[in-house]
Amino acid sequence: MTIAPTRFATRIQAARQALRAADDIALLVGVGADLRWLTGYDAMNLERLTMLVLGREGEPALVVPRLEAPRASLAPAVAAGMVHLVTWEETDDPVAQVPELVRTTPITGGAESVPAARVPRLLVSDRLWASFVLRLQAAFPRVPFGLASEVLRGLRMVKDADEIALLRSAAEAADRVVLAIAGGRLVGRSEADVAREVRERLLDEGHETAEFAIVGSGPNSASPHHEASDRRISAGEPIVLDIGGAFSGYGSDITRTLWATGAADARPDPGFVGLYEVLREAQAAATAAVRPGVPAEEIDATGRSVIDAAGFGPNFIHRIGHGIGLEGHEDPYLVAGNREPLQPGNAFSVEPGIYLEGRHGARIEDIVVCGAAGPDVLNRVTRDLLVVHGT
Amino acid sequence: MTIAPTRFATRIQAARQALRAADDIALLVGVGADLRWLTGYDAMNLERLTMLVLGREGEPALVVPRLEAPRASLAPAVAAGMVHLVTWEETDDPVAQVPELVRTTPITGGAESVPAARVPRLLVSDRLWASFVLRLQAAFPRVPFGLASEVLRGLRMVKDADEIALLRSAAEAADRVVLAIAGGRLVGRSEADVAREVRERLLDEGHETAEFAIVGSGPNSASPHHEASDRRISAGEPIVLDIGGAFSGYGSDITRTLWATGAADARPDPGFVGLYEVLREAQAAATAAVRPGVPAEEIDATGRSVIDAAGFGPNFIHRIGHGIGLEGHEDPYLVAGNREPLQPGNAFSVEPGIYLEGRHGARIEDIVVCGAAGPDVLNRVTRDLLVVHGT
Repeated sequence: MTIAPTRFATRIQAARQALRAADDIALLVGVGADLRWLTGYDAMNLERLTMLVLGREGEPALVVPRLEAPRASLAPAVAAGMVHLVTWEETDDPVAQVPELVRTTPITGGAESVPAARVPRLLVSDRLWASFVLRLQAAFPRVPFGLASEVLRGLRMVKDADEIALLRSAAEAADRVVLAIAGGRLVGRSEADVAREVRERLLDEGHETAEFAIVGSGPNSASPHHEASDRRISAGEPIVLDIGGAFSGYGSDITRTLWATGAADARPDPGFVGLYEVLREAQAAATAAVRPGVPAEEIDATGRSVIDAAGFGPNFIHRIGHGIGLEGHEDPYLVAGNREPLQPGNAFSVEPGIYLEGRHGARIEDIVVCGAAGPDVLNRVTRDLLVVHGT
Repeated sequence: MTIAPTRFATRIQAARQALRAADDIALLVGVGADLRWLTGYDAMNLERLTMLVLGREGEPALVVPRLEAPRASLAPAVAAGMVHLVTWEETDDPVAQVPELVRTTPITGGAESVPAARVPRLLVSDRLWASFVLRLQAAFPRVPFGLASEVLRGLRMVKDADEIALLRSAAEAADRVVLAIAGGRLVGRSEADVAREVRERLLDEGHETAEFAIVGSGPNSASPHHEASDRRISAGEPIVLDIGGAFSGYGSDITRTLWATGAADARPDPGFVGLYEVLREAQAAATAAVRPGVPAEEIDATGRSVIDAAGFGPNFIHRIGHGIGLEGHEDPYLVAGNREPLQPGNAFSVEPGIYLEGRHGARIEDIVVCGAAGPDVLNRVTRDLLVVHGT
């Protein structure tokens, strides 16, 4: 399962149309998800400039260090001749090569032809490093800069069938890892040791990277982005397991909350069970609310209202979800204030959490695709509290 | 082995002195090596702003999303009270909080008090994302921006004893992985499969991340940054193995060239042996040239002259090395044009390569620390061509 090469031509064309519609000059796309989405090139993210220059017209150019030309030439859009390579040598200044590549549209003086509010800009990829941004700004002193996401987000946000298939494969692989961890030993092991097993299992399941493995046990379960530590997991406490990585480039991201009873069968106390039931209901309600046309913020509000009603409102301290695709976090964000209507093909997490600081917490997270008729939930592991022996 | 907490106070003080000496306003440090070097905080690199605001005076502030406050509060410089946390909620604009934190020095109007050539600037970390850079520039419309490396590079470039110990541990771990791969089966396996084993072994050896595993076999050995592919390794061909990751935050990076003879004992042909001997001599000469006061570019020139003399000059298409520390590639770069003299405590790779496109290539890489009297070579695996059975 990969992205068909013809898709890159379609994407480049769509990006160019969006660039023209925005009346901007060019996209300057560094290493990262935008580059991969447009060309299929999965480049090393290093201090040597790699940059796709995509103007309104003409053949797009991919600036690459010469030593990476063999690698870049294998990228689908390059191999298919849609993008040509411009290589630079170790002692060249690659940023100096960009202005001559941005030549199909008048740059300076372009401002005269349009209203001041729409001065044509150069749009840099959102994750381009400051070291490149400042050098590019110096190379184009009279041109305002904007973010490439202004034209690309609307395109990247709607996943096609191949992308959804990859996200589904990623989710299924992560599901198997959660089940394996839940079925194994936990009590007496350190969080870091469990995190290590998670990473290995993600790779075993076909992920090319295992990007995160949050293992928050006992009081650490109340820290949403806890870093797995040397703390030893005890019987009779919860474990928030939030794991993911990239699978053929596309992200997995699942959270389940476990409770390890140990040999003494130390089952969850009623307080935790009650908290978890509220969370379970909130996550289900938010997921059920997913359908085209619903504002993104409404998914957040739907889950939050369940948690608020139970009195845990102040303990749900983050948005309910984030988009996912070639980036682990991307548009659309399901957060108060984002009134964009959901569209078929949007893919995002639905992940409410309730955190009682110093005591315990819980989170449930699935990746959900907005289908034509409602939610398509990619993760299939039960959302019940995973009460396990852990011995 | 970790960095002693008192080191962070020393580093923050040194950064502040350098900031004052540069007559700039403040350092705005996002997630990454600069933040980790200054505070010990190993943050998740996501779309939520995390930013250290370090002005000329006053207590440094670390802006973090509220959900990461528990994690951030464990960072050494925060736990020790050297840096205070400023948290923001999901629906806040964190960038809007930065200007009020940059208040110990006059910002607008500062330009009047100094010569125009030294307008005080805000210095952003080199790897800060464009999405943050452009928003910060909008928040400070009258202030010029520069890069934090202008004040931090000179500090970070000189490793202390603890950092060198970590680099040595990282190198020794990577050495063991190279030896394990060289001693195992290679013939008939895909490059990607070997790369996968490399990553697992790096984790087994205590790395927290296995960042790269270049496995270039046969003609792929001529692509310096080859991405491990489905190509099956045959008997009677070279394999360039360039691997590394992070070990307690500090990078490992070693390259060795193997030759798999297979059961048929297909040993290297004289052409490849000759090429390799030139490379071996170049790498040894470059390493031997390391000592304080020698310009960085001279290490490159020393290795290159050996390769040039043998007629392979056009086939050595990259600089001879890069600094290493909390980043896999950092200052100092050993490249023509960098006349900075080496200092005791500089740590960098020495890695010449010779590449015959479409045919084969070889590279040898060690991490070397510039000691008071000469090179301290951290990798200990033999630099001879590793002729192995691979069966």
